[in-house]
Amino acid sequence: MRRLNVALGARSYPILIGAGLLEEAEAVATLRALLPTSRVVIVSNTTVAPLYLAPLTEALRKVDAGVTPIILPDGEAYKTWESLNQIFDALLAARCDRGTTLIALGGGVIGDVAGFAAASYQRGIPFIQIPTTLLSQVDSSVGGKTGINHPRGKNMIGAFWQPKLVLADTATLKTLADREFSAGMAEVIKYGLIRDLPFLEWLELNIDGLMARDSALLAHAIERSCTNKAEVVAADEFETAKDGGRALLNLGHTFGHAIETGMGYGVWLHGEAVSAGTMMAAVLSQRLGWLATADVERVRKLLVRAGLPVVAPELGVQRYLELMSHDKKVVDGRMRLVLLKALGQGVTWADAPGAEIAAAIEGCCHG
Amino acid sequence: MRRLNVALGARSYPILIGAGLLEEAEAVATLRALLPTSRVVIVSNTTVAPLYLAPLTEALRKVDAGVTPIILPDGEAYKTWESLNQIFDALLAARCDRGTTLIALGGGVIGDVAGFAAASYQRGIPFIQIPTTLLSQVDSSVGGKTGINHPRGKNMIGAFWQPKLVLADTATLKTLADREFSAGMAEVIKYGLIRDLPFLEWLELNIDGLMARDSALLAHAIERSCTNKAEVVAADEFETAKDGGRALLNLGHTFGHAIETGMGYGVWLHGEAVSAGTMMAAVLSQRLGWLATADVERVRKLLVRAGLPVVAPELGVQRYLELMSHDKKVVDGRMRLVLLKALGQGVTWADAPGAEIAAAIEGCCHG
Repeated sequence: MRRLNVALGARSYPILIGAGLLEEAEAVATLRALLPTSRVVIVSNTTVAPLYLAPLTEALRKVDAGVTPIILPDGEAYKTWESLNQIFDALLAARCDRGTTLIALGGGVIGDVAGFAAASYQRGIPFIQIPTTLLSQVDSSVGGKTGINHPRGKNMIGAFWQPKLVLADTATLKTLADREFSAGMAEVIKYGLIRDLPFLEWLELNIDGLMARDSALLAHAIERSCTNKAEVVAADEFETAKDGGRALLNLGHTFGHAIETGMGYGVWLHGEAVSAGTMMAAVLSQRLGWLATADVERVRKLLVRAGLPVVAPELGVQRYLELMSHDKKVVDGRMRLVLLKALGQGVTWADAPGAEIAAAIEGCCHG
Repeated sequence: MRRLNVALGARSYPILIGAGLLEEAEAVATLRALLPTSRVVIVSNTTVAPLYLAPLTEALRKVDAGVTPIILPDGEAYKTWESLNQIFDALLAARCDRGTTLIALGGGVIGDVAGFAAASYQRGIPFIQIPTTLLSQVDSSVGGKTGINHPRGKNMIGAFWQPKLVLADTATLKTLADREFSAGMAEVIKYGLIRDLPFLEWLELNIDGLMARDSALLAHAIERSCTNKAEVVAADEFETAKDGGRALLNLGHTFGHAIETGMGYGVWLHGEAVSAGTMMAAVLSQRLGWLATADVERVRKLLVRAGLPVVAPELGVQRYLELMSHDKKVVDGRMRLVLLKALGQGVTWADAPGAEIAAAIEGCCHG
């Protein structure tokens, strides 16, 4: 079992990483010790619950914690107020008070919705994450971002709410669909691109073993990803840094959100959209003279080997720009993008000329 | 202009108190200096906006801040998800980003809904309160509690979100309906009862002048109330203290919430319900041997002189107990009430015998 600490002062918390943690005595005891009372509510979905709810409930029962399950439909389309309200209704029907701990068992959508429910139920109750997808293990489990989508934009409503503990059980990745697994790899590769060239090189060497879901390689990739994210988050918990800070984590995301929104939530997976968006950012970085053609090709090749799309949907450049202007990364009307000064060196940049942005988008919409 | 500071570390903020602050140059300049950009959204309601929106907008225009107004219907019945979503829709339609400051111009409902909108829009934007009722000037303007009601309970969904500034303009109280003014006095009296016997005695001497809305007396009562609340909140910002702490501020509130919920939101004003609830708490304190009959009579007389109800609606004791058990103040199944060890000395108490609670409720339901 690997253990790392997310250092956020009074809101610091541990991440445990390993195969079989869901039922592993030490991990479950660590979880139990954090509960203020014996009451636990587990929020999961119709895909994950049949696989992991029973063993987790049984493991908790053995340490004298009582579980109330709330099962949501599966998918980004359900990251809505209605799902949030379904959780509130169940918490109120079960008369849960502030001593109740809410556990998210599932991927990023479950983590985001359950986390926002924990942040806002009675103005805040304890929250624990058990992410079961690669994306949620390397991304949403670190940083405290929670929230729901709004018809006018993704993640527009939410809160910063840190978990008390994250359990990343790599065994749950065995049941993950190939497409979901690849989507998670987009964020893993991102950490290498923005701040960790040695990790990027390690990924280039080990991508085939990772795609075969080798447990030891996976544990290393997850730990390195979480460590990178934890360092960035610790320096800028509430995303208030003017330059760099958490915004760096958004490589490919402003373009990617445009793809997700433009295609309708759920058509492209988040990681797939980030992958195509990362290509746009790499091409734009090349146009600004920062990356060589060979660098862009290294990015493209690694994404392709990870089973990810590198060609974006043809929404039309104007539509892309319009959708991107709705993104939270727009500050006082200026579009701030994360670009690459070099491989392993991300930068936030608000001065890219509009024509160059348009050309990079256009250039990535054709195979 | 009086000025006091709510000491919450990095989240500290000033409260300015005085007649005519809405249009007063120094107060408006203080506000302007806190805005990260020139964009302001004012949330108000159909009662308050016709009176104060134009002068405030004009005062802000003079300091080069642009205002987008959002006008909600007036009343506790609109402290709902629908109102919250109306704010989100308007913020998104106006393409507001994280540099936008949200100002609440109105009473407690507007402050609570707008505050929760500010807490959760894009995971948090700056918030300023301009409370226009006595209740919101002495209560909801201090402490950072925001939220909405749920069909199953009051204030069940929300966040702790501190404002950057509170402007309490006592001139706005001139237009307040008598019933609303009295409701605010219930909270003013509360501060004397739970922790400030000299203030309670000052209130007994000056209640007639206060009810005539004497400006100087009002400014003193608001400053003293806010100072008392700020001291309590500073010691227990997130309501996590096991004994005492913020819970002390809930004198009369657990009984009062039962009245509000049992009668249907909006039939009894919050302060009216708190007043009748305070009588229940006083009578229960007497039954436990802590207050003398004369003490209870002093409480009753002061509430009556403030135009407040001291007889509770006859919902039936069982219904009261059932409604009270849904309150957030229930921790791990035990009902924690705020009672009075003496006048000026509140205490949180989880050991009141059920029969005594029932008798106190029963005794306050008859005139």
